Amino acid sequence: MADAKVLSKEPLPEDQAKWIKLTKINYRDPKGVQRVWESAERSTRPKGGEIDGVGMIAILDKPSGKEIVLLKQYRPPIDMITIEVPAGLVDDGETAEQAAIRELREETGFVGAVAECTPVMYNDPGFCNTNLRMVHLTVDMDLPENQNPKPKLEEGEFAEVFTVKVADLWEECHKLERQGFAIDARVGSFAEGIWYAQKLKL
Amino acid sequence: MADAKVLSKEPLPEDQAKWIKLTKINYRDPKGVQRVWESAERSTRPKGGEIDGVGMIAILDKPSGKEIVLLKQYRPPIDMITIEVPAGLVDDGETAEQAAIRELREETGFVGAVAECTPVMYNDPGFCNTNLRMVHLTVDMDLPENQNPKPKLEEGEFAEVFTVKVADLWEECHKLERQGFAIDARVGSFAEGIWYAQKLKL
Repeated sequence: MADAKVLSKEPLPEDQAKWIKLTKINYRDPKGVQRVWESAERSTRPKGGEIDGVGMIAILDKPSGKEIVLLKQYRPPIDMITIEVPAGLVDDGETAEQAAIRELREETGFVGAVAECTPVMYNDPGFCNTNLRMVHLTVDMDLPENQNPKPKLEEGEFAEVFTVKVADLWEECHKLERQGFAIDARVGSFAEGIWYAQKLKL
Repeated sequence: MADAKVLSKEPLPEDQAKWIKLTKINYRDPKGVQRVWESAERSTRPKGGEIDGVGMIAILDKPSGKEIVLLKQYRPPIDMITIEVPAGLVDDGETAEQAAIRELREETGFVGAVAECTPVMYNDPGFCNTNLRMVHLTVDMDLPENQNPKPKLEEGEFAEVFTVKVADLWEECHKLERQGFAIDARVGSFAEGIWYAQKLKL
């Protein structure tokens, strides 16, 4: 994965963009003044769909402690290998829970059962409209499928699956950053919350 | 704030966009195959700068428990009022910590002291290159400035400051979503981590 790299970058004209687009929003502000805002959007959200995608907190319940499933993945927009939770776009007609089970299996090979689903979360609502739900999945290590999981990645997808003890996730994020990996915000903020609750004994 | 609303949306041609842009990235994938990726970017990142912005976990230490400072803010890209942490773009030559202290004061009126700074976190690295550091700030309630804080918002900025007990943040996110607010991912994932650590007694 270390061989992956950006070769060149150029402006992307609107009529050539397939996956994403820029939108000019004319809006009325809270004082009644008409203003303009610039926004980026995905072109792929299912029609009438509420969310673009899902992220999964997939937990292996091991005798030595709970472990979270993470991916190392090369991401061209930042030209780095990221540390991410498994995630994916929702297909037409799919619920968040269905997409989570499908994507976890495709990306990691693990078969999970839904434990919890978060509110819709907006990734960067001053910049774009992209959003997701986080779905918590438990991975039963007694199931034969989970003992030797085999990802089924699509053409052009590359991801390396690994696991980290949930209780050490924050420390591990710092360590991975020092090793040159980029920390995805879902992983980082979840770890930050765990660390903060541990520190304050909440 | 409830009067704010999107009036119309239209495609934004590249040559009219001031704040954001689309980029076509030619890259070599981990197997050596040349591919194209579409990415959205902010045009405002300081030259040579590492991050676009900062988000602040600003904590009031009250006798009744620690409270986190949050904002209600209308966001045109999603046409909703969001629940966000105070946040802002980094100015030229500013460190994350300096930007955090300045933005907290501007957006909320509170004077904070830096307690912790997170790794760089990437908001949505399959879609865009935007990133931030989260800076934890403690707000000393004995300081006269913090007893009657006065935000200094810029023209066109509107934000309503409120606080929530940190230990109740997850429950509060669910409640706010039921009331029609949009949960920003930094608030939601931080709350999710706290809730998860509390549940598991990590």
